[in-house]
Amino acid sequence: MRIDIITALPSLLESPLNDSIVKRAQTKGHVEINVHDLRDYSTDKHRNIDDYAFGGGAGMVMNIEPIARCIDKLQSERTYDEVIYMTPDGKTLNQQLANTLSIRKNLIILCGHYKGVDERVREKYITLEISIGDYVLSGGELAAAVLADAVIRLVPGVLNDETSALTDSFQDDLLAPPVYTRPAEFDGMKVPDVLISGNGKAIETWRMEKAMERTRNRRPDLWEKFNENQG
Amino acid sequence: MRIDIITALPSLLESPLNDSIVKRAQTKGHVEINVHDLRDYSTDKHRNIDDYAFGGGAGMVMNIEPIARCIDKLQSERTYDEVIYMTPDGKTLNQQLANTLSIRKNLIILCGHYKGVDERVREKYITLEISIGDYVLSGGELAAAVLADAVIRLVPGVLNDETSALTDSFQDDLLAPPVYTRPAEFDGMKVPDVLISGNGKAIETWRMEKAMERTRNRRPDLWEKFNENQG
Repeated sequence: MRIDIITALPSLLESPLNDSIVKRAQTKGHVEINVHDLRDYSTDKHRNIDDYAFGGGAGMVMNIEPIARCIDKLQSERTYDEVIYMTPDGKTLNQQLANTLSIRKNLIILCGHYKGVDERVREKYITLEISIGDYVLSGGELAAAVLADAVIRLVPGVLNDETSALTDSFQDDLLAPPVYTRPAEFDGMKVPDVLISGNGKAIETWRMEKAMERTRNRRPDLWEKFNENQG
Repeated sequence: MRIDIITALPSLLESPLNDSIVKRAQTKGHVEINVHDLRDYSTDKHRNIDDYAFGGGAGMVMNIEPIARCIDKLQSERTYDEVIYMTPDGKTLNQQLANTLSIRKNLIILCGHYKGVDERVREKYITLEISIGDYVLSGGELAAAVLADAVIRLVPGVLNDETSALTDSFQDDLLAPPVYTRPAEFDGMKVPDVLISGNGKAIETWRMEKAMERTRNRRPDLWEKFNENQG
């Protein structure tokens, strides 16, 4: 998989893309990430990439020209499955969407910043608009890092133990059950007996019960979905 | 506002906390962020902070002891409004929650990693569990950076122009209207006439109509909420 991220603030992406699982995925050759500094595509001598909004109001708007130049160049080099724009009014990211994107070959991710990009960028280039949640961030960079992380860890071979992702929250519409590790007792709080019983079947049953209980209590919406799928 | 972030991977947080608006907020003294490396609170000679899960299964679990030591130390120094744990089964972050947290004084944010923290940490210390969305990340670090960014930009004085945050998506249960900047025409695509009309009242009406149209089309759930609040 190849991901091209277009941003006005490439420095923001440095540590999230160069650490932990995302770094390992690149080192192992499962994914290639290229970050493009939008200012390199400005023809302005000050390397400007934004301007005041037509009609007035607070906040700057990102110009279409540098973005168009960057995307045109990338698309002349290869075919992209999606040109994604990170924006709070996009389709809300969930695990299903992450699963879908994890089997794509080439993705462009455009990070908005300031008040966002000129609407014509969205009309002309963007094939998929994604929001990571109903809140506003300073820019799309962190959102792009979140999307990249959520997708990349699902690319086959990235996680050492493949069952590790399969038992995560959301993969089966259930939240994950509680987990415990040593010590068996801390400050009077003990690990549930069943987990140290050595009885594999009882442990599995307990975990499923806890996962269902937690989902029912915390996320009735997921619980309903889980039951529909069982039915 | 003071935010203490506890993590096993402090390097992941470097660039998100040292750039853009979050950096400026720290420089201007609006917020103080302290990142605590969990390994500094391990008493193990290998600075381990995780171990196998009781009951078996894939993935490591973060031990309670180093976390307890770190939180106990912080709480002995000052009172915290919330001890937050970033986890996919927490309360889903939204703009209202970000608004609420932006007027708090002291916050601890604990980042989970691997399979998560020992359940007893949650029982003993955590006052608020937050998820940034229905997807799984490699760890809580990016989620903590997202939460910090969403909250910090709302702290009074952080954004240069205070109206800038007020006109963002979600603040009034409406998505933001389209924005445009120069050039007025690009590749045959023109800016809507009204935005270059100079008629302030017409521009305001157009923006409100577009915000309502976009919300109705893209997010019927928000649209319903908006109409309930209008009353």
